[in-house]
Amino acid sequence: MQVLWLALTFDIHAFIHCDGSVDLMLVLLGFRLIVVLFDHVRIPRENMLMRFAKVTKEGKYIQPVHDKLSYGSMVTLRVSLINDAGWQLGRAVTVAVRYTTVRRQFNTPPNPSSSSSSPLDALETQVIAYSSVRARLFPFIALAYALIVASTTVKDMFEQMSAELADEQTNLLAQVHALTCGLKSWGTRKAAEGIEECRKAMGGHGYSAFSGISELFANYIPSNTYEGTRTLSRSSDYLKPTPACFQNKQPHFDDIPRFLLKELQKATTGSETLTDLSNYINRAIKTSGPTDLSRTSLLDPHTQLTLFEVRATRVVMDLAQQVRTGRDWADLNVECWNASVAHTEYVILKCFMEKIEGLEKDPNVEGMEVVALKRTLKKLCHLYALSTVSSALASFLSTQTLQPDHVQSVNDHLRDLLKDTAPDAVPMTDAFAFSDYYLNSALGRYDGQSYLGLWDAAQADPVNSEAWKTKAYEVGLVWAVWVV
Amino acid sequence: MQVLWLALTFDIHAFIHCDGSVDLMLVLLGFRLIVVLFDHVRIPRENMLMRFAKVTKEGKYIQPVHDKLSYGSMVTLRVSLINDAGWQLGRAVTVAVRYTTVRRQFNTPPNPSSSSSSPLDALETQVIAYSSVRARLFPFIALAYALIVASTTVKDMFEQMSAELADEQTNLLAQVHALTCGLKSWGTRKAAEGIEECRKAMGGHGYSAFSGISELFANYIPSNTYEGTRTLSRSSDYLKPTPACFQNKQPHFDDIPRFLLKELQKATTGSETLTDLSNYINRAIKTSGPTDLSRTSLLDPHTQLTLFEVRATRVVMDLAQQVRTGRDWADLNVECWNASVAHTEYVILKCFMEKIEGLEKDPNVEGMEVVALKRTLKKLCHLYALSTVSSALASFLSTQTLQPDHVQSVNDHLRDLLKDTAPDAVPMTDAFAFSDYYLNSALGRYDGQSYLGLWDAAQADPVNSEAWKTKAYEVGLVWAVWVV
Repeated sequence: MQVLWLALTFDIHAFIHCDGSVDLMLVLLGFRLIVVLFDHVRIPRENMLMRFAKVTKEGKYIQPVHDKLSYGSMVTLRVSLINDAGWQLGRAVTVAVRYTTVRRQFNTPPNPSSSSSSPLDALETQVIAYSSVRARLFPFIALAYALIVASTTVKDMFEQMSAELADEQTNLLAQVHALTCGLKSWGTRKAAEGIEECRKAMGGHGYSAFSGISELFANYIPSNTYEGTRTLSRSSDYLKPTPACFQNKQPHFDDIPRFLLKELQKATTGSETLTDLSNYINRAIKTSGPTDLSRTSLLDPHTQLTLFEVRATRVVMDLAQQVRTGRDWADLNVECWNASVAHTEYVILKCFMEKIEGLEKDPNVEGMEVVALKRTLKKLCHLYALSTVSSALASFLSTQTLQPDHVQSVNDHLRDLLKDTAPDAVPMTDAFAFSDYYLNSALGRYDGQSYLGLWDAAQADPVNSEAWKTKAYEVGLVWAVWVV
Repeated sequence: MQVLWLALTFDIHAFIHCDGSVDLMLVLLGFRLIVVLFDHVRIPRENMLMRFAKVTKEGKYIQPVHDKLSYGSMVTLRVSLINDAGWQLGRAVTVAVRYTTVRRQFNTPPNPSSSSSSPLDALETQVIAYSSVRARLFPFIALAYALIVASTTVKDMFEQMSAELADEQTNLLAQVHALTCGLKSWGTRKAAEGIEECRKAMGGHGYSAFSGISELFANYIPSNTYEGTRTLSRSSDYLKPTPACFQNKQPHFDDIPRFLLKELQKATTGSETLTDLSNYINRAIKTSGPTDLSRTSLLDPHTQLTLFEVRATRVVMDLAQQVRTGRDWADLNVECWNASVAHTEYVILKCFMEKIEGLEKDPNVEGMEVVALKRTLKKLCHLYALSTVSSALASFLSTQTLQPDHVQSVNDHLRDLLKDTAPDAVPMTDAFAFSDYYLNSALGRYDGQSYLGLWDAAQADPVNSEAWKTKAYEVGLVWAVWVV
């Protein structure tokens, strides 16, 4: 078995090294970061991973053509994290939707004027029928789909970029780097919040180890941190965008806010073409005041997209305004984060809509399935759009993309959409096709036998074995004698 | 050792029962909920806990005068949970403030036009100096103080209620029940979010078991669930507020939204006196449109309180409006939650301000200390107020308590406040007076030796013992032979 090490030789360079005991740690304990000191160890040349940097047979170290070429592997990791965010969130919401469908709580007393308890044979209300439970869970079904769909678009861009990198072309690298930074930090954060919200929505049983969610959360949460949270920007004047740096053709490895400021600059001066996922700024900078919703519906995809475009553009314009007032870049972290979020939420909506539009041409979808699939995905896309407007309402209102008297309409549409989603919630999550083995949850069993699942899991707990009970009783007797 | 059981006899009634092996489970495994079946077990009369319900020597069971008397114990638990929310959050934010003060990341390159790395002897920037880190952490210092202060006010009310309950008077019970429901669900949720945010703000090391935060989070998070989340309301017409039920003098064990609807009804009809913590509704229902901020500052306590009063009142009025349109109570869970949050955030601000005003009369504070203490607490109170406005901005904007062009002013004041808090962040958290032993965190050491703490903790990890290394190497050799 072989271990891949990153070590400082001439530069940071990956190579392969064999060591029995370290292998064992990896096998036994999962992923660990270890510091290893080498003393007179020779790494065979064939063990050097020489995709871009090379070592000649004479031992000469040759730098890659561009020093950013190896950044491609960081982008790879982020692309997979965006995809994983969708699937892990899907896993939690599958368990929660199944359990809240099975679980019943409270019911209407038989006599409206009496507070006596209801007859034992009356079924209580399904937990999933409560509006607050729907409002908590269903947006995460939509978000799981949205993240998975967006990750396929990003993966396509990434593969194109990789093909170009193989030819040592770095044109796409800056754009894909910025895009994946935004999606990764936003997506993993939202997914972790969603997993915990699913646990809370299941009440007391959600905290049980048998729910499977507590372990999922503990395993998932580090993804928020690794590969960066994008909340810290370097406090450097050098990095502050200036007209000179806007014109620079070399790829700058900026996070998404600096990328957006450059795109805004391009749109303002009309000097260069914007990228496919940012050219909405060209349209949106020409708007002013609140969006006119009097002749259109919040369920119109074009209207939804316009709202997200206008809001994102104005958040970036606010950031640019703050930069112009001379505030230090390090002092603008919060505004940068807001710009990153607004753009990312737009990108996800855009990807989702394009995927739905392109279904007819998708060779993986049978002709007969397109209509039904499109209807369901459209519902999920609406739900993503409106629940995002609702959760980011402060941003839509403060940029005057929406005005306060639109809020009731947003709430009404969202409520109708949640009601409309209810009959589909179980099939929508079944469609993730997780096996019971993979879900590892007594509450989220495919057959809906949550309580049987809990009972079986409790019986299988070593603490309930005969041996343990006997032992506990013996120790208890000693304890009782000692106390008395 | 004795165990307290709740069992169904005539009613739910607490009594004391001895059992060696169950004791042991409690000792070994912490708190567990266990089902016990009794078969021919006699509970001695002196073991019956007979505060309200009684069992006579002849075995006759006598119900308490009011069937809600025993609800007092649920309120006790909630009061302690509100207090605990403040302290546990304080614990996490103490660790995070200390570590981000010690931790440094990134620095300004020596030459602004060069991207070369900085000299090794230049210190990087303290993480706590970044605006996003301040914006993430400092509001939780303020919130920890606010929760602790509010819990003392609630405790005073609770003690008055308990004294009345001892005389079988239940006048205060409904009010304190509703108040503690709101504070408990909001406070524990915010505290858990804050603990996790503190972990994230510490980057990769925050996820280490040695940070102490992951264990704190895992231990704390069930508090969000037990004693209820208050997000589910019973779908019963009986519980829907009606004029008849408003007039009912019997205490109704309503959650806070129903309590608020009744108070609103009182304010509208002028029929009855409102409680001390809800009579702001009398003033606020007379306002309309956005609050005039042209002649006042967002740092004026009266202005802050007015904003919270107006917003809470309008959220409750929106809820009342929705009830009047005939929507089912179960369909209004989200609106109920919003009303509960708005009122709770007002109550906490009100308690905080009153505590500061009353400092001169507080026998626990020495005369000389009052001025300095007041200055610091006022800063924290401002921070609680403005960071709450910022995080609940959608609510302040959609109720037209604030208008979009106020947002920049809120952001500017909050930013100045965060800067102003920075020099005090360490003493403000030191003032919680947690011992290193209690914090149990390598990163949050009082002496600031976070890295030494991490090193020591890693050395003490069994996996780094000589015995383990030797064993691992032996097993590794066997493994290597087997693979080859």
